Amino acid sequence: MEFEEKTLSRREIYKGPIFKLVQDQVELPNGKGTAQRDLIFHNGAVCVLAVTPENKIVLVKQYRKAIEKVSVEIPAGKLEIGENADPEAAALRELEEEAAYTGKLTLLYDFYSAIGFCNERLKLYLASDLTKVNNPRPQDEDETLELLEVSLEEAKALIQSGDICDAKTIMAIQYWELQEK
Amino acid sequence: MEFEEKTLSRREIYKGPIFKLVQDQVELPNGKGTAQRDLIFHNGAVCVLAVTPENKIVLVKQYRKAIEKVSVEIPAGKLEIGENADPEAAALRELEEEAAYTGKLTLLYDFYSAIGFCNERLKLYLASDLTKVNNPRPQDEDETLELLEVSLEEAKALIQSGDICDAKTIMAIQYWELQEK
Repeated sequence: MEFEEKTLSRREIYKGPIFKLVQDQVELPNGKGTAQRDLIFHNGAVCVLAVTPENKIVLVKQYRKAIEKVSVEIPAGKLEIGENADPEAAALRELEEEAAYTGKLTLLYDFYSAIGFCNERLKLYLASDLTKVNNPRPQDEDETLELLEVSLEEAKALIQSGDICDAKTIMAIQYWELQEK
Repeated sequence: MEFEEKTLSRREIYKGPIFKLVQDQVELPNGKGTAQRDLIFHNGAVCVLAVTPENKIVLVKQYRKAIEKVSVEIPAGKLEIGENADPEAAALRELEEEAAYTGKLTLLYDFYSAIGFCNERLKLYLASDLTKVNNPRPQDEDETLELLEVSLEEAKALIQSGDICDAKTIMAIQYWELQEK
């Protein structure tokens, strides 16, 4: 079976600091004609499952404008331009900036967040052998964060209550639970 | 601690069939000044973890233009306008259209796919008591799908190989593995 959609034309509609929006006209496979694909191109991001020696997960509470709510998530951040070659450095930076920890990284999952229309690719790392960083790099100027450290049961309760409500954090907690079983 | 970012102004940059793009100027909390937030507004979607009586997960293979690759995913689909009130109907429709199955739904997770810039909210359902539908509703005209049914071990191998590479499908497989343990 033929799957590929060939690009007939592409128009850039918007280019911003976080992502750009393009509109493709594509030729559908199997003689099904043409279709429009609105796409978000994003530079990618990293996120970190960090479990302390006390067996607690490191979480950050922050405001998310897209949903107009406070959300509790694992430490995460966008890759800066040119940083794609070194996502581990980005993960360590975010872990230090957001939570003042450092550790040893292992890649757990490399995935797309919203594959239907967006190419944002996320790498989820496990950070083990966590230690606190003295004088950590400061948080980003436009971020207001509160740090939490909670047990697996508490993390699962935060999913049930809706305080944790994003895919990467639920994935990280499920991974942790799978290791604990 | 104050978290909320107050909207000073909003400008709609693009409105398309799948999502719209708006640009907000916000007032940061704690006197940190102002910032720009580029946001994608999406009507939401549903996805389904469907496990057959033979203990295999139902997957669909399809082309994803955002990543220019074929991807293997659980059945999923966008909510149509006005369908937010009945996401279960949407989940049953997608399961029937994409995989010719029907079943009994249980909500597993209600989450945001890309919370940093997008309000796409996904509901992941478990479909149990699966039965095949005779004469199912036809697939969407612009979709080319291939159906797969694989075991848990095969599904995990598809994650390792990168054939499965999206958050919702990895989440569903993790959930399934947690039940099996």
